[in-house]
Amino acid sequence: MDRLVVIGGSDAGISAALRSLELRPDMEVTVLVSDRFPNFSICGLPFLLSGEVTDWRSLAHRTREELEATGMRLRLGCKARSVDATRRTVTVSDADGGNFDLPYDRLILATGALSVKPPVEGLDLPGVFFLRWMEDGLACLNFLKERSPRSAAVIGSGYIGLETADALTRRGIQVTLIQRSGTLRKTLDPSLSRLVDEELEKHGVRPVQGMTPKGVERSGERLVVLDERNRRVEADMVLVAVGARPNSELAAQAGADLGAAKAVRVNRRMETGLPGVYAAGDCVEAYHRILEKPVYLPLGTTAHKQGRVAGENAAGGAREFAGSLGTQVVQVFDLVAARTGLMESEASVAGWRPLTVETECPDHKAYYPGARNLQIRLTGDRETGRLLGVQLLGRRESEIAKRIDVFAACLFHGMDVEALNDLDLSYTPPLGAPWDPAQAAAQAWGSARKMRKA
Amino acid sequence: MDRLVVIGGSDAGISAALRSLELRPDMEVTVLVSDRFPNFSICGLPFLLSGEVTDWRSLAHRTREELEATGMRLRLGCKARSVDATRRTVTVSDADGGNFDLPYDRLILATGALSVKPPVEGLDLPGVFFLRWMEDGLACLNFLKERSPRSAAVIGSGYIGLETADALTRRGIQVTLIQRSGTLRKTLDPSLSRLVDEELEKHGVRPVQGMTPKGVERSGERLVVLDERNRRVEADMVLVAVGARPNSELAAQAGADLGAAKAVRVNRRMETGLPGVYAAGDCVEAYHRILEKPVYLPLGTTAHKQGRVAGENAAGGAREFAGSLGTQVVQVFDLVAARTGLMESEASVAGWRPLTVETECPDHKAYYPGARNLQIRLTGDRETGRLLGVQLLGRRESEIAKRIDVFAACLFHGMDVEALNDLDLSYTPPLGAPWDPAQAAAQAWGSARKMRKA
Repeated sequence: MDRLVVIGGSDAGISAALRSLELRPDMEVTVLVSDRFPNFSICGLPFLLSGEVTDWRSLAHRTREELEATGMRLRLGCKARSVDATRRTVTVSDADGGNFDLPYDRLILATGALSVKPPVEGLDLPGVFFLRWMEDGLACLNFLKERSPRSAAVIGSGYIGLETADALTRRGIQVTLIQRSGTLRKTLDPSLSRLVDEELEKHGVRPVQGMTPKGVERSGERLVVLDERNRRVEADMVLVAVGARPNSELAAQAGADLGAAKAVRVNRRMETGLPGVYAAGDCVEAYHRILEKPVYLPLGTTAHKQGRVAGENAAGGAREFAGSLGTQVVQVFDLVAARTGLMESEASVAGWRPLTVETECPDHKAYYPGARNLQIRLTGDRETGRLLGVQLLGRRESEIAKRIDVFAACLFHGMDVEALNDLDLSYTPPLGAPWDPAQAAAQAWGSARKMRKA
Repeated sequence: MDRLVVIGGSDAGISAALRSLELRPDMEVTVLVSDRFPNFSICGLPFLLSGEVTDWRSLAHRTREELEATGMRLRLGCKARSVDATRRTVTVSDADGGNFDLPYDRLILATGALSVKPPVEGLDLPGVFFLRWMEDGLACLNFLKERSPRSAAVIGSGYIGLETADALTRRGIQVTLIQRSGTLRKTLDPSLSRLVDEELEKHGVRPVQGMTPKGVERSGERLVVLDERNRRVEADMVLVAVGARPNSELAAQAGADLGAAKAVRVNRRMETGLPGVYAAGDCVEAYHRILEKPVYLPLGTTAHKQGRVAGENAAGGAREFAGSLGTQVVQVFDLVAARTGLMESEASVAGWRPLTVETECPDHKAYYPGARNLQIRLTGDRETGRLLGVQLLGRRESEIAKRIDVFAACLFHGMDVEALNDLDLSYTPPLGAPWDPAQAAAQAWGSARKMRKA
């Protein structure tokens, strides 16, 4: 049981390989990397487009040399074509087009996600881009450098859409943001996403709401995005960011079951059910810690954790993935938006009786200069009092990312809203308040719940 | 059981009164405030001295009108002289020097702390100040305005000493910081407190180490601080900040037991043992959540929480104080230092077998501009793997205050170090890393523990 093959050289695959080797340095670990970018931070691509990251090589979490120094064997440009789970063999095509068979004792599938291609004509036109893998990003960067576009249409206002709108604006490009529904609608309730829209407009992004593109066409040197009602958005380039879907075809071919959103079905040990075959990252389901069931929630943080669990188990361990809370954060110009846990709508569907209370309070004592208000939308179950989820919005300097992490730690432990008041959180007037905003929000929620009961 | 008397109008007392009235608006709640500053943020005094807070009135958490609108009766300038716990009566002297008796059904003692007066001659000289209550701060501010001192000696390098050194420096005053032992020695290990010293010196503060003052003398218009070996520090003013001690005399006179550091002994319901008498805040012991025993750890955050518990119970509740972790944070110029839980030395004394590992890592992905390193010293028990405490040091923009709060939430739940890796924390390259620094520190600790075992 000494040969581990990992298919995929991004977050989950490399985390898995590293963890296996950490626990069992004697294992023979081979990582098949379909492109030439092992262990690159694809979450960093928007910042490459903006010019904030000046060298694409710096996006590597670790260099090839650092990876190989751990003992892993990296096979770049090698695509896994099929898996024979009975013979425990992967058929691989290499960069030169040759095929070879690679036997394994344990296999980890970490094939990641693919960009969703919406049913829109003309997405293969030059000047239309997706942004998922390094090659996508480099192609787009190349276009930006060679063609110096002055305008861009971004389709989709989730995390990648927003980061790209921010990035291209920083580059001096006029961005039109085409949204089917509201900004960050999977992350923020309307009262908060409206504030994100204001931030976008303040920085010159033009939002087009309620538009579902049906085609992209050439118009001279430019492109035109059209919808059913013939609304038109003209731009020098188009970036499509409407979501991710699991790259699970290889797993399905090998005989693995697919689950939520056709992601590879895994148990909490990241086992697929095929003998010796694990899977992790954006190609698999994630166990949701509050819903207590699998969902499809592809995130880099989850990929790292699932990879580490898969790697530990492939090395003989028995670790379980603790679950995702869907904790996310995004910076949009000077604003930071974050969430963890469930939104009210999700909680309702899952059978809770959610109550959501929005609190606005300063990030530190108002008497000390520079205090800025932040918004907290806290959702709890009005029957049991359990904390279910939190949305946060505030300025860059208001420590939003770490504030959401405090809530994430509370959700991890299934805390009641009222119990947040028991947490011994830090305080100094320039940086906080004796009742932290998290606790002020908990108290406001408690009062609102009591009023509803009365 | 309808008359509640609260002795003390600062954090614990007001929190208690507010909570009682929130739960039992029909109660008759009287708060005796010995000065004329109810519900003032005395933690804000250093920022009043620095000039960052321009109006002392803004230090009020709530105005007198806001407090009275809740239904509480504030008696300013009223000092409780004695408590007769059998007759359930407080004898009070009012601002005019008259005495009166105030009967109660429930009593909450929230008399706070007093500045420790070290055995130093001459502390009553004009130009020598302490900094605990509003009157201390206003006297010092008055001196600063009227006398425009050009130099100051600050005795003590705990939180208040450091904040005052920072504050007076911002005001353009040359500060000499006199320390008996190391900077923030109760909060930071030497490797981190050295970095605080560098920050102080960078901003022009002159540290004098290993000096135990024995006297302050006049020298013309100036003051001189002297020690046994006749080392001398001359300055236009002296600020003494060598700690706090519980103001527990009234409680002792009433028959309450005293415990750690002569603080009022209370159980976790904040009951003193005297019938109907609770106590909270800087005058009482705090139950330590990790040590599982009472300690003396006077902090504003704890005072608020204990006050709320006492108020809830005085209103007929049965709530327990969840315990202190000693979570603290301080800003010193551009640096922020924080801690939660136990330092290695404290953990050893308490019978653990602590292992402390220091990790330095960037506050966000290094490829995104502006990444700054932060220091994490993580202490865990090498036998059980339990997280025991954390010290953090970094720049203002590195979100140190909220990072320590994530650790505080983990400690609250008694987590193992390794389990930190299971937390679903937020990530976007400008604000973090897919493995948060907390998790990088946990992994470094895990490796070090394994190496020690091997």
